[in-house]
Amino acid sequence: MGGPSGGGSFLHSSPKKPKSRRLVRYTYRLLASLGLFVLMSGGLVVAFFVYDASTYEENPESFDIPVSEYALTPRRGGPKNLPIAEYFVDDDDTPSMKEQKHKPKLVILGTGWGSVAMLKQLHAGEYHVTVVSPSNHFLFTPMLPSATVGTLEFRSLVEPVRKIVKQKHGHFLKATAVDVDFSEKLVEISSTGPTGEEERFYLPYDKLVVGVGSTTNPHGVKGLEYCHFLKDIADARLIRNQIIRNLETACLPTTSDEQRRRLLSFVISGGGPTGVEFAAELYDMLNEDLCKYYPRILRNEISVHVIQSRGHILNTYDEALSKYAEERFAHDEVGILTNARVKEVRPESILFTQKDEQGNTVTKELPQGFCLWSTGVSQCEFSQTIAAKLGDNQQNKHALETDSHLRLAGAPMGDVYAIGDCSTVQNNVSAHIVTFLRTLAWEKGQDPESMKITFADWQQVAKRVKSRFPQAADHLRRLDRLFEQYDQDKSGTLDFAELSELLRQIDTKLTSLPATAQRANQQGEYLAKKFNKLAHSTEGFQKNLIADGDIDEAVYKAFEYKHMGSLAYVGNAAIFDFNGMNFAGGLLAVYLWRSIYFAQSVSLRTRCLLAMDWSKRALFGRDMMNY
Amino acid sequence: MGGPSGGGSFLHSSPKKPKSRRLVRYTYRLLASLGLFVLMSGGLVVAFFVYDASTYEENPESFDIPVSEYALTPRRGGPKNLPIAEYFVDDDDTPSMKEQKHKPKLVILGTGWGSVAMLKQLHAGEYHVTVVSPSNHFLFTPMLPSATVGTLEFRSLVEPVRKIVKQKHGHFLKATAVDVDFSEKLVEISSTGPTGEEERFYLPYDKLVVGVGSTTNPHGVKGLEYCHFLKDIADARLIRNQIIRNLETACLPTTSDEQRRRLLSFVISGGGPTGVEFAAELYDMLNEDLCKYYPRILRNEISVHVIQSRGHILNTYDEALSKYAEERFAHDEVGILTNARVKEVRPESILFTQKDEQGNTVTKELPQGFCLWSTGVSQCEFSQTIAAKLGDNQQNKHALETDSHLRLAGAPMGDVYAIGDCSTVQNNVSAHIVTFLRTLAWEKGQDPESMKITFADWQQVAKRVKSRFPQAADHLRRLDRLFEQYDQDKSGTLDFAELSELLRQIDTKLTSLPATAQRANQQGEYLAKKFNKLAHSTEGFQKNLIADGDIDEAVYKAFEYKHMGSLAYVGNAAIFDFNGMNFAGGLLAVYLWRSIYFAQSVSLRTRCLLAMDWSKRALFGRDMMNY
Repeated sequence: MGGPSGGGSFLHSSPKKPKSRRLVRYTYRLLASLGLFVLMSGGLVVAFFVYDASTYEENPESFDIPVSEYALTPRRGGPKNLPIAEYFVDDDDTPSMKEQKHKPKLVILGTGWGSVAMLKQLHAGEYHVTVVSPSNHFLFTPMLPSATVGTLEFRSLVEPVRKIVKQKHGHFLKATAVDVDFSEKLVEISSTGPTGEEERFYLPYDKLVVGVGSTTNPHGVKGLEYCHFLKDIADARLIRNQIIRNLETACLPTTSDEQRRRLLSFVISGGGPTGVEFAAELYDMLNEDLCKYYPRILRNEISVHVIQSRGHILNTYDEALSKYAEERFAHDEVGILTNARVKEVRPESILFTQKDEQGNTVTKELPQGFCLWSTGVSQCEFSQTIAAKLGDNQQNKHALETDSHLRLAGAPMGDVYAIGDCSTVQNNVSAHIVTFLRTLAWEKGQDPESMKITFADWQQVAKRVKSRFPQAADHLRRLDRLFEQYDQDKSGTLDFAELSELLRQIDTKLTSLPATAQRANQQGEYLAKKFNKLAHSTEGFQKNLIADGDIDEAVYKAFEYKHMGSLAYVGNAAIFDFNGMNFAGGLLAVYLWRSIYFAQSVSLRTRCLLAMDWSKRALFGRDMMNY
Repeated sequence: MGGPSGGGSFLHSSPKKPKSRRLVRYTYRLLASLGLFVLMSGGLVVAFFVYDASTYEENPESFDIPVSEYALTPRRGGPKNLPIAEYFVDDDDTPSMKEQKHKPKLVILGTGWGSVAMLKQLHAGEYHVTVVSPSNHFLFTPMLPSATVGTLEFRSLVEPVRKIVKQKHGHFLKATAVDVDFSEKLVEISSTGPTGEEERFYLPYDKLVVGVGSTTNPHGVKGLEYCHFLKDIADARLIRNQIIRNLETACLPTTSDEQRRRLLSFVISGGGPTGVEFAAELYDMLNEDLCKYYPRILRNEISVHVIQSRGHILNTYDEALSKYAEERFAHDEVGILTNARVKEVRPESILFTQKDEQGNTVTKELPQGFCLWSTGVSQCEFSQTIAAKLGDNQQNKHALETDSHLRLAGAPMGDVYAIGDCSTVQNNVSAHIVTFLRTLAWEKGQDPESMKITFADWQQVAKRVKSRFPQAADHLRRLDRLFEQYDQDKSGTLDFAELSELLRQIDTKLTSLPATAQRANQQGEYLAKKFNKLAHSTEGFQKNLIADGDIDEAVYKAFEYKHMGSLAYVGNAAIFDFNGMNFAGGLLAVYLWRSIYFAQSVSLRTRCLLAMDWSKRALFGRDMMNY
């Protein structure tokens, strides 16, 4: 660098500056700048290598590790006399882990959006945290469709849960919860033992968070064994392999024309975001990468169909957006079959019914070489087991019911919480009418059921309703109008029956929260914030056991879901629905779509990997291999 | 940019230059340079995005593709009356593919080092190329051990074969060769049909190249079903999952101390490069990444053992290097059990015999939670089938024998070639003694067997031997000494018996070529160069059918293996053996080891991916997840 820049200053100091000199000077400067750029880039590379060299551990650490005897040989107990895992082998591993050894035990079931959001927000050291899940990674589900066709690497979508747990000095067990004993506060856990057989043990808890997610909804359709699902990385890998296998088989000289068309007929059952994004990604791959390497005849014989039971795909989105998506797919030659219900999946075809123009239901058959089943979610076995235990408190067949503080309805108050897809927040405002009126009645010394409620009283009641059911706030904006409307005898006051009717009407307007990553994420964060507060407001939860007040309500507000918007990728285009602000577009929208997920991605690691993957796709295309 | 640099030139033109001004000037320059760096980097990013945007296909191509009727409905024939795939659906896809439709049919079996090296060197358009393999990717095998523990991504080690085949306007069939009919020139192919059942068809060839590789050698040991192998990506994935599963199970509270130690006992049977590199990578992972996320007690209970039947690990390397590797492993607490033979693998342990100090053979047992079997290679079924067909011409039980032109011994000359691990080059110099003497005898009008060979004659014979058996050249350096030595009656001439004995002695000194990627690669390149020449020297191979001369020999020299050296990674250190030049060392050697493989890597794509992977490992460590 010294050379050129020294030359530059020599030129500057010369008194005369003819034009040619100036040109030389600028050339020098340009070269110097370029050299500088190369040097700086080179410097960064060298710095990286120095850092890389520092990451290799030279000497193995080896010393005595203190391990509690109780951790090695747990005592047995509980209703089934199983081992009770009170202590773990890593309880004394670090000073900070030692510190929380005797803190209240917080057990989190699952490692999905809700559980991980909670873990990330939780203050380390307040609880003895144990995470139990059959999968040791967190999966960034919204981008899973991209991984099925090789646009993204599997690894870029997952984050090791142990990494997140370790930050909170917690413990992780790769196992599955099968039951809960609410009275003894024990979760029954099933794991695969060292020799491959099932083993069961109890995990004691002070606070239990259920975030076990959901399973695929079969909708009573026969032949789902011929379908693929898209819930986890393993599914994505199976899909990727099947697609490539079909393409390869289609190239064989022994494959007949008819079979080739069948192998290349891709059917997606379900027009929700997962189905639509998968169709878009699949189409992209077939369009962009297939032609490069496979015989051209394949491109002509490929068909992609989406079977949707409603009138439009993406029916939870704004209508303009779902229309945009449909137009996009029409342009891309992806067939959309709306108002169609799958009857049966067969090894080589799919049967479905659809209304014709006269309104008659007609059964149709579509040959299929690949079928994806993505038609909503259903309750998993564990949720069913504990719901059954809680009897009448759990009426919902599809999810575990919680109150607006996310406490599992029917379980001892403040012990068990449920978040994410496995749960739903009760909207039974009217069922709590007596609770709302209790203070008011006590102040006035009256019986709640015979009270006359003035407008001022109503304002107080409405305030309480809003604080307990934040989701109802939208429907409690014009208190005066509501008061007038439901004061049917125009007495200037509401009686118990009138108020009940008012609240019942609000109930019907409240819809259950969507089973999305967004909701689970918000619930997890909500619970973490509350638990952080709870840890400080009570000493070791002992008050929780003796006080009969609602400590959750005292400490923190009720959960309120804030819809941040929806987005979807629809094949070199993307659509956005931000609370009524709609936006749909081509490549720029795709970059925006990526940016949003990039920002929401779980760690710096996954962000780097995503960026690398997108670059890889641009430079080298998707990989058409199966292994 | 305008601002600071404009300010800079204003400062320059001012007549006085006090020190403070100079400081300001340099600060300005520094800032300007930094700004420039950011701008240039930004420019590169923008340029990348513009490029990225151009890679999205907007409009699907859709037009009529001409496909030959013969390709859609192949005629039947051959000894088993199977369909004969003479034409393919993509024969007319592009003008260049159309051009070679009627060129001589070159069929390549396998997509390993040999086949891919050949494909890459082959001139496009000379042959109608068809590649048949059960796997549609080429695997960069030397780095496979790194992929087992997540240092590298699976995808970075593989290259889609269709991409390479496409460059040569060839065809690819994902299928397996099962038999060859040498007289009708048909390869019998087995494939998985559209409904999952096996289908068979014939593939006609003019030239057939067998590069089907080898399988694992069981050495007659019982219980290999409890072992892992390391031949393909699928194996690497199974290994990665098993390691993580063992670690997770070791953390469960129900796992006893004894079982935990067993689960964490990793045994590698075979001290060759694969076994050693796997042990090194495994140790690295356990040492560098395990402690970060798993209970510390695991680190203390882990053991890694390498069982080697010879006296040293890496016994094909220079002794100093294998000693260095052994010391390295001793430092890393990896147990090396030499002179040990595995007797049986059991679900939870491995039995082996080892000589004790008194020379007695003792049977020992080692608990195992993971066992890798990497003890050499064996002939695969297809090779066995065709070797059996060729009868006495194929005596070797371990590989297909070829002459030094790589032509399969016993098959019609110039029709079938064999390369890579499935093959071995015959070293039967003495068997060809009559061939060497034929011209000489013809010139002198004598019977070869009663000829007297003078030193001048011997020089001529030696030249012929060297050209036919390049591997023998090393042993034919001092012709005068050899002549003297074998001229036992000191007659000044050699008779037939004396010359036979001389050549027989040379035979015993020749060792068979190593079954390595290096040899396969050289053989593939050799064959491609020869085939390129053959295509030009004869018109459509017709001469090959009528001339009875040795066209291979006329056109191109015999295959000569040039050993370029061996290298191995031994745990944050690497060893190199370049034809006697030995080198072993720590991190710098590791970077050198990487550079060599980086350079040898199959494409720009894999090179970029490798670089990304190494950066990922440095930044984020290995991923400890299984899915």
